[in-house]
Amino acid sequence: MPHSINQQIFALAPANEPPRLNKEQERLVVGKAAWIYAMAQSGVPTAPTICLTRQAWENLKTADVGSPMAAHWVATLFKLVKKGQQPPKLVVRTAAHTHLAGLARVRGAIDAPAKDKDALDVKKPLGRAIQRAFDSYQIGTPVWADDGAVNLKDEQIVIVQAAFDQPVVQMQTRDLNSGLMGPTAVNGERALPESFTGTAAQELCATVDRLAGTHMICLAALAGKRVVFLSARPVQAPISAILEAACDRVARGIWTPRQAVSKVDPGRLPQLLHARLKSKKRASPLSVGMGVSPGAASGAIVFSAEDASRYQARGKDCILVSLETGPADIEGMQAANGILTARGGITSHAAVIARVTGKPCVSGVRSLVIDMENGTLQLGDRTLTQGAELTIDGNSGEVYAGALPLTQPNIGGALGKLLDWADGSRTIEVRTNVETIEGARTALSFGAEGIGLARSEHMFFSAERMVALRRMMFSQDLDDRVEALQGLVEYQANDYAQLFTEMEGRPITVRLFDPPLHEFLPRTPEEVQETAASLGLKISDFERRLERLIEVNPMLGHRGCRLAISYPEILEMQIKALVAGGNAAIQTNDVPVNLEIMVPFVSSSREVAWVRSHILALMEQLGMSPSETFKYSVGTMIELPRAAIRAGEIAKHVDFFSFGTNDLTQTTFGISRDDAPAFLAAYQRKKLYDADPFVTIDKKGVGELIRTAIRRGRAANKDLKIGICGEHAGDPESLKFFAGLNVDYVSCSPFRIPIARLALAQAAI
Amino acid sequence: MPHSINQQIFALAPANEPPRLNKEQERLVVGKAAWIYAMAQSGVPTAPTICLTRQAWENLKTADVGSPMAAHWVATLFKLVKKGQQPPKLVVRTAAHTHLAGLARVRGAIDAPAKDKDALDVKKPLGRAIQRAFDSYQIGTPVWADDGAVNLKDEQIVIVQAAFDQPVVQMQTRDLNSGLMGPTAVNGERALPESFTGTAAQELCATVDRLAGTHMICLAALAGKRVVFLSARPVQAPISAILEAACDRVARGIWTPRQAVSKVDPGRLPQLLHARLKSKKRASPLSVGMGVSPGAASGAIVFSAEDASRYQARGKDCILVSLETGPADIEGMQAANGILTARGGITSHAAVIARVTGKPCVSGVRSLVIDMENGTLQLGDRTLTQGAELTIDGNSGEVYAGALPLTQPNIGGALGKLLDWADGSRTIEVRTNVETIEGARTALSFGAEGIGLARSEHMFFSAERMVALRRMMFSQDLDDRVEALQGLVEYQANDYAQLFTEMEGRPITVRLFDPPLHEFLPRTPEEVQETAASLGLKISDFERRLERLIEVNPMLGHRGCRLAISYPEILEMQIKALVAGGNAAIQTNDVPVNLEIMVPFVSSSREVAWVRSHILALMEQLGMSPSETFKYSVGTMIELPRAAIRAGEIAKHVDFFSFGTNDLTQTTFGISRDDAPAFLAAYQRKKLYDADPFVTIDKKGVGELIRTAIRRGRAANKDLKIGICGEHAGDPESLKFFAGLNVDYVSCSPFRIPIARLALAQAAI
Repeated sequence: MPHSINQQIFALAPANEPPRLNKEQERLVVGKAAWIYAMAQSGVPTAPTICLTRQAWENLKTADVGSPMAAHWVATLFKLVKKGQQPPKLVVRTAAHTHLAGLARVRGAIDAPAKDKDALDVKKPLGRAIQRAFDSYQIGTPVWADDGAVNLKDEQIVIVQAAFDQPVVQMQTRDLNSGLMGPTAVNGERALPESFTGTAAQELCATVDRLAGTHMICLAALAGKRVVFLSARPVQAPISAILEAACDRVARGIWTPRQAVSKVDPGRLPQLLHARLKSKKRASPLSVGMGVSPGAASGAIVFSAEDASRYQARGKDCILVSLETGPADIEGMQAANGILTARGGITSHAAVIARVTGKPCVSGVRSLVIDMENGTLQLGDRTLTQGAELTIDGNSGEVYAGALPLTQPNIGGALGKLLDWADGSRTIEVRTNVETIEGARTALSFGAEGIGLARSEHMFFSAERMVALRRMMFSQDLDDRVEALQGLVEYQANDYAQLFTEMEGRPITVRLFDPPLHEFLPRTPEEVQETAASLGLKISDFERRLERLIEVNPMLGHRGCRLAISYPEILEMQIKALVAGGNAAIQTNDVPVNLEIMVPFVSSSREVAWVRSHILALMEQLGMSPSETFKYSVGTMIELPRAAIRAGEIAKHVDFFSFGTNDLTQTTFGISRDDAPAFLAAYQRKKLYDADPFVTIDKKGVGELIRTAIRRGRAANKDLKIGICGEHAGDPESLKFFAGLNVDYVSCSPFRIPIARLALAQAAI
Repeated sequence: MPHSINQQIFALAPANEPPRLNKEQERLVVGKAAWIYAMAQSGVPTAPTICLTRQAWENLKTADVGSPMAAHWVATLFKLVKKGQQPPKLVVRTAAHTHLAGLARVRGAIDAPAKDKDALDVKKPLGRAIQRAFDSYQIGTPVWADDGAVNLKDEQIVIVQAAFDQPVVQMQTRDLNSGLMGPTAVNGERALPESFTGTAAQELCATVDRLAGTHMICLAALAGKRVVFLSARPVQAPISAILEAACDRVARGIWTPRQAVSKVDPGRLPQLLHARLKSKKRASPLSVGMGVSPGAASGAIVFSAEDASRYQARGKDCILVSLETGPADIEGMQAANGILTARGGITSHAAVIARVTGKPCVSGVRSLVIDMENGTLQLGDRTLTQGAELTIDGNSGEVYAGALPLTQPNIGGALGKLLDWADGSRTIEVRTNVETIEGARTALSFGAEGIGLARSEHMFFSAERMVALRRMMFSQDLDDRVEALQGLVEYQANDYAQLFTEMEGRPITVRLFDPPLHEFLPRTPEEVQETAASLGLKISDFERRLERLIEVNPMLGHRGCRLAISYPEILEMQIKALVAGGNAAIQTNDVPVNLEIMVPFVSSSREVAWVRSHILALMEQLGMSPSETFKYSVGTMIELPRAAIRAGEIAKHVDFFSFGTNDLTQTTFGISRDDAPAFLAAYQRKKLYDADPFVTIDKKGVGELIRTAIRRGRAANKDLKIGICGEHAGDPESLKFFAGLNVDYVSCSPFRIPIARLALAQAAI
């Protein structure tokens, strides 16, 4: 019978024979229909089922009884009838590619059409049910929204299935929490009936699990003593259960380890690595900001570092709430269970520190008003007093009143197993962005192969050191500055010695001093007083200096290599500290040192050439030359559009490039991440961005700059090592892109290392 | 006689015949030697002169008497001897490509070598003088510094000339101030002797002028009654004299108008268009900042707009001195003769306003400390009181105590003539960046062919309007905002009506609202109070709103099309005001309207598509469609790296691109121009930049982005019109680059239009 390609009517599971579909028909089979077809094929008892496309149905409605088309439809309907039995009652189901809200519910217990004519009639029960099912595809987001191919609509299918007298039972193929093979009752429902716990049901579940490779909910019924498969749909399981199931499938020989690696979504791992909300069902958020450091936390509201420490000392949980954070808040942030700020975004001080220390953090909550005098905060129309409980979700950015129940992280053996398998396929190195011993330890426990970004200025994030640092920043002449620097060398040398020791010869990329000024200037009257005193200045004189240091756009200001070039004594201090730290580690702890010095915020080859030649001259002065015990090299961060464009020239002066994708995104888009919340919401609502470019790398813009820089850099220097540091190195989609660029390593915050290991393995498979 | 190519000895002006040089010798003849050779060739009586290269001299020193080389040298020396006369005394002169400090002074009255041997001997007078002359090339910057070709050193030449008994006289070919043909006495010296004022001297000057095409100082002497040419060197004349001389050469038929156009340096025109310091000889600056708006001004120090207005009212000159300026200072800036600020750079508020209003301005004077309480300022170690006189030079950035004498601008007929000739060759349109009637009139008088950038937010730069604008910025919801906007429509409609009328159908590109927030937020307690009152808010509530609007990096903040997208009602207000203004101009003044609406700060095609579709929908709502009387089109500003990269996609949605080179330079380099002074000085000292990238376009970085954007844009939309707005459009070197990109127009501040007209004509010749 000739008909157009989309005008298909066929049996997915004929009553009396195995299904026989051609290629075209197999292509049309999606959603539930796919499971039914697969089960029928595999020989599991399956309810007789047929299907038809929308185009077939549209034509049937106007077809003459007895026409070849109508005759084929009636003949196919007869494939639902068991040999020697009466036609069964019928059930009509949708079968969409993706399950969408608005799809018609199943229509059951429809009488089979009495006459051929009834099978074509929209006013008769079967026709009405089919029509309703097709119509429901139009509700909600159309399934073809992003495909562009309009005729996909014609290809949608509806299922007609033989109904069963026995009650239909839902069962899960695997336990939702443990991941163990089922059958198990669907969450929240009572236990399965006896007849669905035996071998037949177990085999059914095992078959569905083998075919689907994911947690499924199956519909089944009894036909006599046989368990008959009706339909199935995937169900979202916690990542812990998904990992257990994946390992179980490998143990059963269903999957190879490589297959297991390829099937787990790396984007779901953060749920496993941080506490999370048990359920949001009954709570509605007071406000929503940006989730800038994952995990959930709850505790009493505190407004100061002192209060946070007091809570910690008493073993009580607290959330530090602040307009924004700065170096003076570090100790408070470490004492608190979570951080909530009114300002800032994913690259703000609060966010960076929170991610490094693994604290959940929500930032950019514009509706948050803090009244320090009265010790209250306002969120929307709700006022909460200091000490009242609050819960934050650093994934979604939601803020809730009260202490909501949390699920604690569960790093089980399954994750370890999977990541080990992943490392077998992975070719790109995974490093981490840390500069503290604690951070390095966490990162190593997650599998870090080196440090890709140690932000040297972060080493001053403590009240005492900050005073020393500020003394240097505010010095007015060379003598002042050199004196202030002397103190800093000691701090840093000691830090580096510890870091080199901890990393035991793994590469450590130390970025030269790059403080965006505004994060380091004193703000509170106390800080001003303290810094003025340390400089021996009157407050008024000090304020005059402060006034001159304030920048209009600190992100585009006097930072990065610009500091090293205008104040070479700062560079000198840093190199001295690195060499002293390295030598101390070698002598005291007998570890080799592998130091990569990174020049930040470069926009021209002359800058990097200048800094490099000064570094090499300093090394010579210090009697250093690279050796097996103390390796060192000099590279640069590519984080400005001009650096990407001039990469060919720059590459001649460096041993490595590391792409600072945060800053590169800021300048390429002209968006200050800290200020973006004011318009990002409107942008996302209006679909102006496919994804937040600070979360997922913008392949078409920033990505083109990275690709150009890599091409030009490698052409000019074939030994150039290439890495990616910045938040994107922990995002699965971005990692896939970076893998395609054939980079040598990526470097992300410690808690994202497992994501990178898995995503990079998938990209290599 | 065979010798190496650089081993040359030859006569520039032999005593008894015309000179005969081969190609290679002509190439070696530079500086004074070139003028001597040219004059000798043209038949003017010229002192006998020979020359030799360094390589020739080095070999001569060790040559044997009687060797072919030595013999050639002696023979050439004999070319200085007039037939039948005794060998003259000799003079040794350097002849460098560029006149450099440190070159040996002329050595005169040297006895001619008595024996051949003496001609080769470094210890004898001639040899000693020649050696000294060559040695002096090594002092100071080597002449070959930028050429890279080391053997250029071998090619340096020294001149040996016959000396004259008569005193040598210096004369100028043209008057230094009027540009009239000389001979005239050299500035500061007494009048020329009688014998140098007659026809012979006049002819000599005319010949030198014809050959050199620039103001020259000639050395001449009398030989009997004849005026004999000895040497010449160019002299820097004021641009006014250069223009008069150029016109005079055209009148004399020496140059064609095209040649005249090609020979004047457009970079010197600003001196003509603004007042300047008469002489800096006796003054030394108190401090040096950045010259951000050209011209010099002097007057009494004032610290407030009110005081500036008071001085203006009394007809007295004053300089407004401020930490930085904001909209509240506009009236004071207009009342003052010049502006001096401690902060800011070439794109800061003070600089932009100063250039538009033609006021000299010096910014970024970091050593400037203002003590408002005592009414004093400190510059370096000097303290000056309010009312004391100060002089600023907006070209050099210098600040002087006292009122230095100034030269007033002199826009004579010569400039007009030259620019008319220039327009004959120019193919690229020149527009201007203005938004006020006064600015438009100035621009038209300088030859503007349209407005390429009307910054709509600048129309609110007055105290009264600023209150209205701030009311809009601080409105908390749509109703508030719509009410505040209503008032703004009226202001703007009226402004636009005037602007359309003034421009009489010439294109006007209006950029949609693009306020970098920090320039518009109230700062002083009075401004805060006033804005709070206009919103009916308590100060404390208002300050809370203010706190939330403050951005960390306003240049990368909630600005440009981001505002139009998050608050479509602002866009609506603007379109309504433009349409109302256009219609009013058509109805009242019977002028056609040619409106180009420009969407600023775009980073993706979706943004521009969104804004464009909203503009077109609004136009439809207002019953508008493009007509001969009221043309309108929609374009975008390309000022972010991503926009340049995605230009192909963006071009499909727009009628024109205009490159905002200031912002594009800021983001490509990651430099906030306002904050750059902190490190730019060190960068320039260390030669890290060839030129300030905010003054001369960075061809290798920003330029590549512009070139890419033009190529992709034109490939996607062949009708795309392309313009350049931003300060670079007034810089000669940048204009040459833009001309090479085949843009359709450039747009610069009014006072730079003559520069653009001339530079673009030169690029086309």
